[in-house]
Amino acid sequence: MLRWLTAGESHGPALVGIIEGMPAGVPLITDDVKKALARRRLGYGRGARMKFEQDEVTFLGGVRHGLTQGGPIAIQVGNTEWPKWEKVMSADPVDPAELANMARNAPLTRPRPGHADFTGMQKYGFDDARPVLERASARETAERVALGTAAANFLREVSVELVSHTTAVGTVAAPVDAALPLPSDVEALDADPLRCFDATTSAAMVAEVDAAHKEGETLGGVVEVLAYGMPPGVGSYVHWDRRLDARLAAALMGIQAIKGVEVGDGFLTASRRGSAAHDELQRNEDGTIVRTSGRAGGIEGGMSIGETLRVRAAMKPIATVPRALKTIDVASGEATTAHHQRSDVCAVPAAGVVAEAMVALVLAQAVLEKFGGDSLAEVKRNIDSYRAAIPGN
Amino acid sequence: MLRWLTAGESHGPALVGIIEGMPAGVPLITDDVKKALARRRLGYGRGARMKFEQDEVTFLGGVRHGLTQGGPIAIQVGNTEWPKWEKVMSADPVDPAELANMARNAPLTRPRPGHADFTGMQKYGFDDARPVLERASARETAERVALGTAAANFLREVSVELVSHTTAVGTVAAPVDAALPLPSDVEALDADPLRCFDATTSAAMVAEVDAAHKEGETLGGVVEVLAYGMPPGVGSYVHWDRRLDARLAAALMGIQAIKGVEVGDGFLTASRRGSAAHDELQRNEDGTIVRTSGRAGGIEGGMSIGETLRVRAAMKPIATVPRALKTIDVASGEATTAHHQRSDVCAVPAAGVVAEAMVALVLAQAVLEKFGGDSLAEVKRNIDSYRAAIPGN
Amino acid sequence: MLRWLTAGESHGPALVGIIEGMPAGVPLITDDVKKALARRRLGYGRGARMKFEQDEVTFLGGVRHGLTQGGPIAIQVGNTEWPKWEKVMSADPVDPAELANMARNAPLTRPRPGHADFTGMQKYGFDDARPVLERASARETAERVALGTAAANFLREVSVELVSHTTAVGTVAAPVDAALPLPSDVEALDADPLRCFDATTSAAMVAEVDAAHKEGETLGGVVEVLAYGMPPGVGSYVHWDRRLDARLAAALMGIQAIKGVEVGDGFLTASRRGSAAHDELQRNEDGTIVRTSGRAGGIEGGMSIGETLRVRAAMKPIATVPRALKTIDVASGEATTAHHQRSDVCAVPAAGVVAEAMVALVLAQAVLEKFGGDSLAEVKRNIDSYRAAIPGN
Amino acid sequence: MLRWLTAGESHGPALVGIIEGMPAGVPLITDDVKKALARRRLGYGRGARMKFEQDEVTFLGGVRHGLTQGGPIAIQVGNTEWPKWEKVMSADPVDPAELANMARNAPLTRPRPGHADFTGMQKYGFDDARPVLERASARETAERVALGTAAANFLREVSVELVSHTTAVGTVAAPVDAALPLPSDVEALDADPLRCFDATTSAAMVAEVDAAHKEGETLGGVVEVLAYGMPPGVGSYVHWDRRLDARLAAALMGIQAIKGVEVGDGFLTASRRGSAAHDELQRNEDGTIVRTSGRAGGIEGGMSIGETLRVRAAMKPIATVPRALKTIDVASGEATTAHHQRSDVCAVPAAGVVAEAMVALVLAQAVLEKFGGDSLAEVKRNIDSYRAAIPGN
Repeated sequence: MLRWLTAGESHGPALVGIIEGMPAGVPLITDDVKKALARRRLGYGRGARMKFEQDEVTFLGGVRHGLTQGGPIAIQVGNTEWPKWEKVMSADPVDPAELANMARNAPLTRPRPGHADFTGMQKYGFDDARPVLERASARETAERVALGTAAANFLREVSVELVSHTTAVGTVAAPVDAALPLPSDVEALDADPLRCFDATTSAAMVAEVDAAHKEGETLGGVVEVLAYGMPPGVGSYVHWDRRLDARLAAALMGIQAIKGVEVGDGFLTASRRGSAAHDELQRNEDGTIVRTSGRAGGIEGGMSIGETLRVRAAMKPIATVPRALKTIDVASGEATTAHHQRSDVCAVPAAGVVAEAMVALVLAQAVLEKFGGDSLAEVKRNIDSYRAAIPGN
Repeated sequence: MLRWLTAGESHGPALVGIIEGMPAGVPLITDDVKKALARRRLGYGRGARMKFEQDEVTFLGGVRHGLTQGGPIAIQVGNTEWPKWEKVMSADPVDPAELANMARNAPLTRPRPGHADFTGMQKYGFDDARPVLERASARETAERVALGTAAANFLREVSVELVSHTTAVGTVAAPVDAALPLPSDVEALDADPLRCFDATTSAAMVAEVDAAHKEGETLGGVVEVLAYGMPPGVGSYVHWDRRLDARLAAALMGIQAIKGVEVGDGFLTASRRGSAAHDELQRNEDGTIVRTSGRAGGIEGGMSIGETLRVRAAMKPIATVPRALKTIDVASGEATTAHHQRSDVCAVPAAGVVAEAMVALVLAQAVLEKFGGDSLAEVKRNIDSYRAAIPGN
Repeated sequence: MLRWLTAGESHGPALVGIIEGMPAGVPLITDDVKKALARRRLGYGRGARMKFEQDEVTFLGGVRHGLTQGGPIAIQVGNTEWPKWEKVMSADPVDPAELANMARNAPLTRPRPGHADFTGMQKYGFDDARPVLERASARETAERVALGTAAANFLREVSVELVSHTTAVGTVAAPVDAALPLPSDVEALDADPLRCFDATTSAAMVAEVDAAHKEGETLGGVVEVLAYGMPPGVGSYVHWDRRLDARLAAALMGIQAIKGVEVGDGFLTASRRGSAAHDELQRNEDGTIVRTSGRAGGIEGGMSIGETLRVRAAMKPIATVPRALKTIDVASGEATTAHHQRSDVCAVPAAGVVAEAMVALVLAQAVLEKFGGDSLAEVKRNIDSYRAAIPGN
Repeated sequence: MLRWLTAGESHGPALVGIIEGMPAGVPLITDDVKKALARRRLGYGRGARMKFEQDEVTFLGGVRHGLTQGGPIAIQVGNTEWPKWEKVMSADPVDPAELANMARNAPLTRPRPGHADFTGMQKYGFDDARPVLERASARETAERVALGTAAANFLREVSVELVSHTTAVGTVAAPVDAALPLPSDVEALDADPLRCFDATTSAAMVAEVDAAHKEGETLGGVVEVLAYGMPPGVGSYVHWDRRLDARLAAALMGIQAIKGVEVGDGFLTASRRGSAAHDELQRNEDGTIVRTSGRAGGIEGGMSIGETLRVRAAMKPIATVPRALKTIDVASGEATTAHHQRSDVCAVPAAGVVAEAMVALVLAQAVLEKFGGDSLAEVKRNIDSYRAAIPGN
């Protein structure tokens, strides 16, 4: 059972994550994680932080000489700005006199709408939003991307490849029938300012971001993740929580700012008539049985069906809006406007990379559940013999 | 930790479910479950089965004299048609000669598109779809509704009330700004042919069903579940899998035929600008701090925020389309059309009841996680003292 | 991930259990479960209940024509005495007047030492021990034995066979160096009054039971479970909760009345010196590498090592002692003696059967985790190819 | 749900652990962890490593200004010897030429009996025991002690205090009826060479260690952990895996080298007669209901009963025996003797500290499950109101 935990605060010394259950023998090096983290900083419309945010990657355990070792893998992502925050975020107590005059340490008593701030303070008993935003911040997704790299490397070894791209930013959306990007398109996608596969749409998205920036606004959007090469039968219909779609939905909705999730054509499918909503079966010349369309997004009955898997996530606009939102100062009880921390206009391209990481983690987990195996060789052997045994494959 | 398992086949002797972790002292009687199951059979556009499907409810454990006892609760939902299926679905071996001439036992070798049939056969090594469809069938949701009744009864005792309704059927959708039904509207909703809160929309939905029926088509749609009275701080931002939205997304996507999930305004929010996408905070005259709108669906930072919780699920059209879909006969390898079992035109109203059950289960689980407690009295005490302690409540 | 839940009360209509995660294609019939339950009723020193306790076994789901179907398996064990208890244990409310005069319904306010009674009442807020003892009773282990049958059948198909036997009753213990029973000895063991493999010891145990009976006493003892044929590498050293020994310890200690657990020579090993405490490695003539002894009980580093697995559990004497123990009447607050329900002198032989079931469940779970597979054929294929690939096997 | 993962290798850059689910507001500082780790290095009979092993403790997340923040807590324990191992244990590939001549990097092909070496190689597909022993090593328990410190600090705040001590080393055991050490005795225990509470026994243990050392032997023993102040009703009888004894058994058996576990009088209880095996109930002058003895170890029906909790673990002798054990060189296939890494004669005193940490983790988890709560204040409030509500308390 692949499982993982992340820890660390936005301005703490480091993020760290542990992933347990990865087989031995999976290729993984520091540079793989660095590259993945660099992709997370991509995207037109990001603020200053993305530029100076350096991700110092250190494996604390689980990898030796470029291969996983079967034990838990720990990846630390250091915070290069830590010296500035050492006192404010110190684990050990700090002389109050020293803290008294630090602006960075001033209590954040004006909870920001659209964030965890206010409810987080109620839940955990804080009179300041600092401890809430430090952990609720999307900075934490850097660690998910780090752990997702291990999962993606494993998947690649068993011939599953992931692609993520942006399908909508604000009101600008790619055409419904646009071609899907392939693994070979990833480099081009990463080079696009919004990680959008359609050049015309991308240009319109840039204009949308510029307009929003000018008006002190922020934008959300929609990202899509594709998985090529999934064997059929991963996940199961026999119990609701073993369904692959249910687990992917949780993984995507569990990303900060995500408010909607679709598998395949999703909400659009709900408006179609039965004869135009499903993927029919046909036999290829080589004898394999395939679907005539991809409406289901590669999942039926909670299982991968051996076709391209496709899921989408809807991201709300960044809640730290320059044009500040109304709130209450919990110290004074007075109406006011929210703290405005430096922020981005649009983080949708990055959300695609994070979504890709979460999908990688869930697919790796589900593949390992079906096929077992403690070494990469064993997993491959089990997958190969399954593929050889099933009819129509 | 509230957890549950269901078992049973569509044409087996019974469905049965066990739910473990419910506190003692929650009122629960057989009739509560029967009523919930009757609601699941509601809806314009259902086929014949719903009429003769009788749900015989038996508590096998966990409830005594109308109150839960702290131990696992087992609810059996008997199948009144069992005598017809006794041989075909017998657990113990049956004389092959006896089975040979039974039409009901004929191998189902034409897997139905849009169903688990084909992949299920590959995964579990069957040469017949019977064992797949028996478990993958939506009949299983009757047991979820049964278990959900226990969860809903618990929630009601701690002042959380659920409402589900249909917001779209095929291309007919309720207006985006329609008023939300209240707990007091449930009776009226259940009396509506499509469990739609807007009379005009409901009439159009009836017409949509009639048209689809005439054309040998099936329909999907969208359902919404509301939870009134949730205390703030249930769920958490500290780890992705403790987020209430992630868990609700899994629960809804884990229902048969669901392809999309939204929290609050969902995909619509993704197209809005930041200043119009979030719920601002204001102080009421009584000193409580509330949101000025409900766009977030009552969840921020993965936590309930003390406002009405609102989630939606998109259901694909029923995959057993009278106008039969193309498939391959796996016995002969020939192209053919799918088996057509008796079926409904539209099961969206029922999906709302199932979604309500899944939401009840997840909310009860999350409430118990935050508040602990082994008796209803203890849970209530813990909630009350939390509410009394938090500011702005 | 094999998982299971049980439900039901001692005097309720039935016990029921669901086990989820079993591959398809495992042979399993009603009679297998009946035979296992009959073995649980074995043993010299059992009271009257064992004689009239009839176990009506019904599969409610998951098995068809003698084979598991990949979905959850539900096994119901009916209570033939239910008519006597129908009112007292009714799930739905019963007219209080009807209950008022029933001796069976009289509140049990004198909690029995050594039982869950008193603390259970505190925890769940009961003023009567009835709801506690109904679920805490060892009657529940019948359901574990039922579910364990499915696990044992699976293990047998992958060449793992279980044997349980009694090694001590009260102060009478089998010699430390006694030969271990083999799978071929099970019939003989079941025929022995105490399921003891050593005839002399068995005779002494019978005398011990007789003496205890005469003196109004009860007895505990020690049982041992052996697993033959385990492949090496099941369980893992990489994380504490994946260790096979940890999981077996929980499974055994989680049986009612068990107070101690050992793997291999257990506490005896702790008193040995290093050179005499471990199992050395040697190469057999056929090239396989084996251990020279079995002190470790077939588990090292939290993994099965390919040798016979051996674990033991210590059972306390039955707490319902005819020579009644001192307690407090919680209604009156007065000192008194405990309720004395009909009881056995010694249930150690039955505990062996229950321990065997729990070991079967844990081993099946761990085997499935390592090897994956959704059909028995797939699991076997994965095990075979692993065995073929590992050196020294 | 309190959960945790550890990662890191014996000679890697650091161990790291993450614990998720701890409420906010629990006092915790670096020095608490350092002190706990220093206690783990205690004990007569430890080898050289314990002296130069320095534990550099860094909180990477979850703690601010001396208080937990509600999010996951990450504790890193650095390895001061890392520079010596940087190449051999490098996560990234190292030039083979550089490694070729390093003695530290020589393949370990003579698996040590009593260790995970041989089976670990089979399971994960290694041809060298290095990756196995790096993770299987008891060095990993340092991280458990680090995480256990957080759990122990939480427990102390809710008035639960832990004590661990050594009750046997080799054949030398403390008297069965020896007085139990109290929380106020911890300092004295830590000052004793073997952490034994009985001075005479301690002296005999020292002699036993000296004798073993002289003969090239190693020793095991038995440790006991006590928990004072547990509220009644933690854990439950309603399902086997919710039993506190089952969970403690797993936690103790899951420590490297542990082969037996007891609750209360354990195996001794199994040999007693019923009238002398249980703890009777009596009412104190202040009205509280208490047990007349502590045979059950404070757990009945899988629940804490409000009395002192007492569990024991049996540790096998260290498997790296100076008088080397027989094994097979897997490279050559020849019989040989095992690698002998530097080692201790006896690590039982340290095992007590590790066992204490595991008990702390499990009790904190179970307390949080029963009482819920996201801040220390909320947990305390819930415990207090429960204690006030239960009779006989």
